[in-house]
Amino acid sequence: MVAANDIGLVTPFVEQFNEPLTLSDGSVLPAFELVVETYGELNAAKTNAVLICHALSGNHHAAGRHHVSDRKPGWWDQLIGTGKAIDTSRFFVVCLNNLGGCDGSTGPASINPANQQPWGPDFPSVKVCDWVVTQALLADRLGIDTWAAVIGGSLGGMQALQWSIDLPDRVRHCVALAAAPRLTAQNIAFNEIARHAITSDKRWHAGHYQAEDVAPIDGIALARMVGHLTYMSADGMSDKFGRELRDASIDGANEDNTVFEVESYLRYQGTRFATRFDANTYLLMTRALDHFDLAANTGGDLAAAMGKSQCRFLIMSFSSDWRFSPARSREITNALLTADKAVTYADIETDAGHDAFLIYDPVYVGLFDAWMRQVKI
Amino acid sequence: MVAANDIGLVTPFVEQFNEPLTLSDGSVLPAFELVVETYGELNAAKTNAVLICHALSGNHHAAGRHHVSDRKPGWWDQLIGTGKAIDTSRFFVVCLNNLGGCDGSTGPASINPANQQPWGPDFPSVKVCDWVVTQALLADRLGIDTWAAVIGGSLGGMQALQWSIDLPDRVRHCVALAAAPRLTAQNIAFNEIARHAITSDKRWHAGHYQAEDVAPIDGIALARMVGHLTYMSADGMSDKFGRELRDASIDGANEDNTVFEVESYLRYQGTRFATRFDANTYLLMTRALDHFDLAANTGGDLAAAMGKSQCRFLIMSFSSDWRFSPARSREITNALLTADKAVTYADIETDAGHDAFLIYDPVYVGLFDAWMRQVKI
Repeated sequence: MVAANDIGLVTPFVEQFNEPLTLSDGSVLPAFELVVETYGELNAAKTNAVLICHALSGNHHAAGRHHVSDRKPGWWDQLIGTGKAIDTSRFFVVCLNNLGGCDGSTGPASINPANQQPWGPDFPSVKVCDWVVTQALLADRLGIDTWAAVIGGSLGGMQALQWSIDLPDRVRHCVALAAAPRLTAQNIAFNEIARHAITSDKRWHAGHYQAEDVAPIDGIALARMVGHLTYMSADGMSDKFGRELRDASIDGANEDNTVFEVESYLRYQGTRFATRFDANTYLLMTRALDHFDLAANTGGDLAAAMGKSQCRFLIMSFSSDWRFSPARSREITNALLTADKAVTYADIETDAGHDAFLIYDPVYVGLFDAWMRQVKI
Repeated sequence: MVAANDIGLVTPFVEQFNEPLTLSDGSVLPAFELVVETYGELNAAKTNAVLICHALSGNHHAAGRHHVSDRKPGWWDQLIGTGKAIDTSRFFVVCLNNLGGCDGSTGPASINPANQQPWGPDFPSVKVCDWVVTQALLADRLGIDTWAAVIGGSLGGMQALQWSIDLPDRVRHCVALAAAPRLTAQNIAFNEIARHAITSDKRWHAGHYQAEDVAPIDGIALARMVGHLTYMSADGMSDKFGRELRDASIDGANEDNTVFEVESYLRYQGTRFATRFDANTYLLMTRALDHFDLAANTGGDLAAAMGKSQCRFLIMSFSSDWRFSPARSREITNALLTADKAVTYADIETDAGHDAFLIYDPVYVGLFDAWMRQVKI
């Protein structure tokens, strides 16, 4: 059942880049591919293109369905479509799987042409600024000189912010949701635990698990459980799970030895994720997060960093997000105001935690929608 | 170097209980041992005894040193000694390793007399109310009819609260620090992740790792990393670690592939813990936490539950503790006020997180000390 304003069926395509790419750490990729989806039509003047940047576990499939039988649409389907906040009757929406990803773009699971083996842990480290470079190469390929908007949440929001200062003349609007100018020690520690879970798995094989035809699925599942738990708020979890038991007796454990609903839920989420996500990509993505620092080139002066931007900003945070708290979005907003930039900031009252940017909420989407209407094309 | 008000050298002793013990889940332990330390002298009237209940990873060694060469004293040495908050010139202080522990009391690592094998995962599940029962048997053995005070932090505080309602005529004062009336779904989820880390370890062997002469040390280390991280506050971690790098270059990882100081610190804490703590005990302790519910027998009515108590209460919380937040201590305080009980409540401003109850802070210790001075012996 597809509603009239839904995207409907979409087909991803692959763009091949055959020029060697020098990454920020100095390593060189001889060639790479990016898998891409687009929604809506590019106008003749090519002024209506919007780039959607995905977060840690996201990919190019942001809206619509690949098959009529797909149980779920793309990860941001609630916001992308005709008349939705990112209105495909106005915008040409581009979303890609980032370099280093595991959903079709070149990444650790791809074949290293130098030895015809999977790259695995030898894949170069990729930083947020490298994604901006590769996304700009994609824009060139699509004939897009300037994005009407670059949009993302969490790690995606960090890419949008990096775009605004690395290629300021190619971005007219920037939307950063549930983001931060850089990670805290606590953020890094949670990422480290996720990495440690993966690299402690008996099937890790120093990252060369593909050669053994296995995957460190227990480690990935555990990493995801930690992530998923920290993306929710304590209140949201209490509302969703309370202390519901999986069966009538508090003393009886189930076959998987879980007693409370929340345990069963987390295990299910972790196990499901482990079947679809590459462990080396998870490490690469969390490292990109850890090293992200908007003010790295301005001696820690965030206002000086943001001063390079030329676009208008929408910054939004979510009240119960404790991984990337509202205070972090206010740091960004404050820096933009200090740098005399045009910024709209809103903190959305919600108990959905960090994941709130993925979930429909009338105030959140209403604000987002209204702001996007002033984006001229 | 031992200060004049320190405990000095202490020697733990073992109490053997040869009567079968029926636990709350109906299982029967044929016999058990508890390892105990005491500080100070029991007075002739036996009215000055104080019970210290330990938390998840604690044990009977709360103060003093076992050997002059010990690098560190017991875990609460800052609070126990002559003239300290728990003043050994006035009180006879008793601390034990709980049943199910791994520091000398009967637990999963002990030998099951039925088959002369380690109990391992077949050790009965132990609840907080079972600890109250066994601690009462220890009190009987020591000739202590009524505790001047039962004191604990975190899971230890939960035992103190359970004492106050299960054996109200044997407790004159109850001190519960950084505790909660029961766990939230988020609390349970963090415990579940710790358990999942342990049971996913390749050395887990369905809990019978002792028979293989190994231990699931990677899983225990990871469980501890999660625990330790969540016992700190985000601000406290920023102050302690910031984004300090382990070496000069952000691109260079160390031999253990950690880049940030906080990663190295967490790995060290996890690895150190894994060498001393039994995995089955960790599971048992987290399950005891998950199932703890003061109001379980009063249909969720906490005030009705606390109404059974007859003692005076000191409830303290710590402002940056997000695992057992001040709001949880206020729930307890509110219930005690509703039940018309004598309660002193204080929230201590600190960035030390949940671990704050273990750390010297002049306001915290000053309040604790002043309150303990009104405990008549």
